[in-house]
Amino acid sequence: MPLRLDELAVRFGCELQGDPDVLVERVATLQDATPGSLAFLANPRYRRYLATTRASAVVLDASAAAACPVSALVARNPYATYARIAQLLYPSAAFSAGRHPSAVVEAGAVVDPSAWIGPQAFVAAGASVGPGAFVGPGSVLLTGVRLGQEARLVARVTLCEGVRVGRRCLLHPGVVIGADGFGQAPEAGQYVKVPQVGSVTIGDDVEVGANTTIDRGAIDDTVIGDGVKIDNQVQIGHNCRIGAHTVIAGCAGIAGSTSVGRRCMIGGQAGIAGHLEIADDVVITGNSTVTGSIRQPGMYSSALPVEQTRQFRRNAARFHKLDELARRVRRLEGAVGEQGDDDE
Amino acid sequence: MPLRLDELAVRFGCELQGDPDVLVERVATLQDATPGSLAFLANPRYRRYLATTRASAVVLDASAAAACPVSALVARNPYATYARIAQLLYPSAAFSAGRHPSAVVEAGAVVDPSAWIGPQAFVAAGASVGPGAFVGPGSVLLTGVRLGQEARLVARVTLCEGVRVGRRCLLHPGVVIGADGFGQAPEAGQYVKVPQVGSVTIGDDVEVGANTTIDRGAIDDTVIGDGVKIDNQVQIGHNCRIGAHTVIAGCAGIAGSTSVGRRCMIGGQAGIAGHLEIADDVVITGNSTVTGSIRQPGMYSSALPVEQTRQFRRNAARFHKLDELARRVRRLEGAVGEQGDDDE
Amino acid sequence: MPLRLDELAVRFGCELQGDPDVLVERVATLQDATPGSLAFLANPRYRRYLATTRASAVVLDASAAAACPVSALVARNPYATYARIAQLLYPSAAFSAGRHPSAVVEAGAVVDPSAWIGPQAFVAAGASVGPGAFVGPGSVLLTGVRLGQEARLVARVTLCEGVRVGRRCLLHPGVVIGADGFGQAPEAGQYVKVPQVGSVTIGDDVEVGANTTIDRGAIDDTVIGDGVKIDNQVQIGHNCRIGAHTVIAGCAGIAGSTSVGRRCMIGGQAGIAGHLEIADDVVITGNSTVTGSIRQPGMYSSALPVEQTRQFRRNAARFHKLDELARRVRRLEGAVGEQGDDDE
Repeated sequence: MPLRLDELAVRFGCELQGDPDVLVERVATLQDATPGSLAFLANPRYRRYLATTRASAVVLDASAAAACPVSALVARNPYATYARIAQLLYPSAAFSAGRHPSAVVEAGAVVDPSAWIGPQAFVAAGASVGPGAFVGPGSVLLTGVRLGQEARLVARVTLCEGVRVGRRCLLHPGVVIGADGFGQAPEAGQYVKVPQVGSVTIGDDVEVGANTTIDRGAIDDTVIGDGVKIDNQVQIGHNCRIGAHTVIAGCAGIAGSTSVGRRCMIGGQAGIAGHLEIADDVVITGNSTVTGSIRQPGMYSSALPVEQTRQFRRNAARFHKLDELARRVRRLEGAVGEQGDDDE
Repeated sequence: MPLRLDELAVRFGCELQGDPDVLVERVATLQDATPGSLAFLANPRYRRYLATTRASAVVLDASAAAACPVSALVARNPYATYARIAQLLYPSAAFSAGRHPSAVVEAGAVVDPSAWIGPQAFVAAGASVGPGAFVGPGSVLLTGVRLGQEARLVARVTLCEGVRVGRRCLLHPGVVIGADGFGQAPEAGQYVKVPQVGSVTIGDDVEVGANTTIDRGAIDDTVIGDGVKIDNQVQIGHNCRIGAHTVIAGCAGIAGSTSVGRRCMIGGQAGIAGHLEIADDVVITGNSTVTGSIRQPGMYSSALPVEQTRQFRRNAARFHKLDELARRVRRLEGAVGEQGDDDE
Repeated sequence: MPLRLDELAVRFGCELQGDPDVLVERVATLQDATPGSLAFLANPRYRRYLATTRASAVVLDASAAAACPVSALVARNPYATYARIAQLLYPSAAFSAGRHPSAVVEAGAVVDPSAWIGPQAFVAAGASVGPGAFVGPGSVLLTGVRLGQEARLVARVTLCEGVRVGRRCLLHPGVVIGADGFGQAPEAGQYVKVPQVGSVTIGDDVEVGANTTIDRGAIDDTVIGDGVKIDNQVQIGHNCRIGAHTVIAGCAGIAGSTSVGRRCMIGGQAGIAGHLEIADDVVITGNSTVTGSIRQPGMYSSALPVEQTRQFRRNAARFHKLDELARRVRRLEGAVGEQGDDDE
């Protein structure tokens, strides 16, 4: 359904520049837009495409407005405004209430009449599915699961015993919530399994990407706060606590019993060791390794960026003698009477 | 079912301190325990919670016993003893034998009458499922699979052609055993697929975490030894051999044809290149990169820990000139008549 | 079915050395071969097994031919030639056309009569399955999916809305194609979901390893070129473009909107940041971190290899003061009148 630009301006508090009667009915990138499209400009990298865009309208900020050759919605936060308009243009697919004939819903499961249980899904006795929730094809809800109102399991999501998922959560295919944490007690060169008797509690408005895993707690629950956004293939160990509105990019791993604060940003492939505390508002850049608690907000890194392999190997060889190199420098300082601040 | 402390002491060879009639019926952390709970103290990090615990009993070692305000089981290895008691308190859920009506078991599959084939599971002709084995919802067993006695596939586990899983193994949701190894023969700028005609052999008492993948061998089998414990999202390439009682933490990856010894500990996100040999009793810390064989037991590392990004970037820039820096130090040593031990 | 060596030589353009009547009916490694087996020698690491092999024939190159104690096929590219012969010896399992009674194929799905829809698979209305395609057990094809001719979904593959998979593609269990990209617009300390309205287009002859995820585009499609080979647990973000005949090893991650060229080789656990351009013919070694575009072909690295932890920790501590160390060296150079080339 096409949307009028003036109505969008009012609804999202933007300044309208240009023709209020413009209709947009889909989104497009600046460079590929055609009439009827809404584009946006948020990343300066793409500003070069603005002058020649064929979009019917562009969402952008005040600094770019003068350069826009077509109608515009001038917003403080163009990306968020674009996101909200795109949500209007592309609403989640509607679904009927009820259950597919191939689904298995055990007696003793409590499924709200407004929820949908999809093809080949399984809902065990003792699980409950809230109003308007969507259980996609092939999903598995074991006993004691509580799936919140309007939560959506796209397909093939597994929720293990007792897992609670809040309202409006969105879990993508292959997600596994509540598998056993990795509790293995060493004894005489072998391991004794430590029963994992906690579960997982996920707040409201959480998104979890494809094939991500969040383990159940050893004793207490693993806890994911409201509004946390987790990308694909992230691993969160048992008894982690992730503060509200933290984002975690793909392939990051957080070992057991670590607490991450609120509004943190964990980069892709970052690894955080277990039993740590990460403060609020911490940013960890991609592929970094965190082995100690971080008490102060700020941005932290440890992943060297690539260089040509030949040169890298020379440098890496020197790294392996870096302690020695520092000692040599200290000796030199002694020899020439310089005062280094080596603290060894 | 509540357990008596004196019976536990006898059964697990602990010294009982306090009241032999104490009953425990669940586990709890020291800090959250309430009467009826058993807690444990193994990690000194949590000792500060001992004095105020409300647990009915605590499993701990002799060094902490005097400080325990409640009854105690004094054990040499409190964590392992705790694990065994927790196994008693929380036995695996019982299941009926047979098969769910929605399961598909092809003619020619051999399923022991004491096994369970869950909802929407698929067992192909030529697969066999041993006594007391549990095939959870949505699991797929392709032809030739042999699932051992009392093995447990929690849900949505895939076992590809010919995979053998030993007794009492525990495989978590999303596990894929026996997908094709990554065999691609380069030819004229393209790749020819190399058929992967081996399979995977997994020993007894192996645990495999959610969404972990273990590839089938190119010619011979990939082999996982008895008692190996593998966390979530681990990738093990074709023809790897993992020695008995080795543990592999989440997101680690081991490339093809590498042998890892017995009783090794591979840290989270560690990466081990292909065609290597890792000795017994090797510890690799998290996010490390192993590019050569390791012949000696010991602990090995390579992942830099984070520092503030601003400072890290300065250091990383210096790293890219580290070879040159070492040459400069050598020249300085020449200039001042110092004898460095640079071996270039 | 046994194959004659002389026929193989003709078919694959090899020079036959030895007995043309030799029959081979299976493959084996040099060291474990028994009569009737075909082995190959491509990696010099395994040459030591040649002299004692009991294979009936070996595929090898001219440099090794004289040392071969049995019949041989002398090939320019022994590994590729071996791969092609193995494909003859181990053809993909034949399957009947049609659908398993437990599959759900919605009205409005278009399934070629020569395709197979396996047990507990789900094909939504609006999806199409091409001639000779194989949809393995538990796979899910959402609306608008187009699965190409002779494509093969081994088991439990998920193809989300509108995903197009080319001809002869091979997707392993747990693969998720077309889950939402990670689009989250920050706003006032929270995030607004950015609808992901593009999809994924995968070319012909692409292989995708177990539990790999490829996200749908935010606006335009994510695009995987012809002949791309992707290992297990790889993560490819929204709007990436992967050039033809590129290979990506296990656990690598490529963040959104990055373009990778043709014929690249991305090592295991390598991480590539978003919005970058990687040229054709670039090799990234394992566990490296790419944070900037790479314009020139060549090999790039950044992952330090392990050393003993005690020594590593000393070196890592020095790394954190590397900038300072370089400044100290510069001061020394000033003190002794040396001319360093420090460019700070």
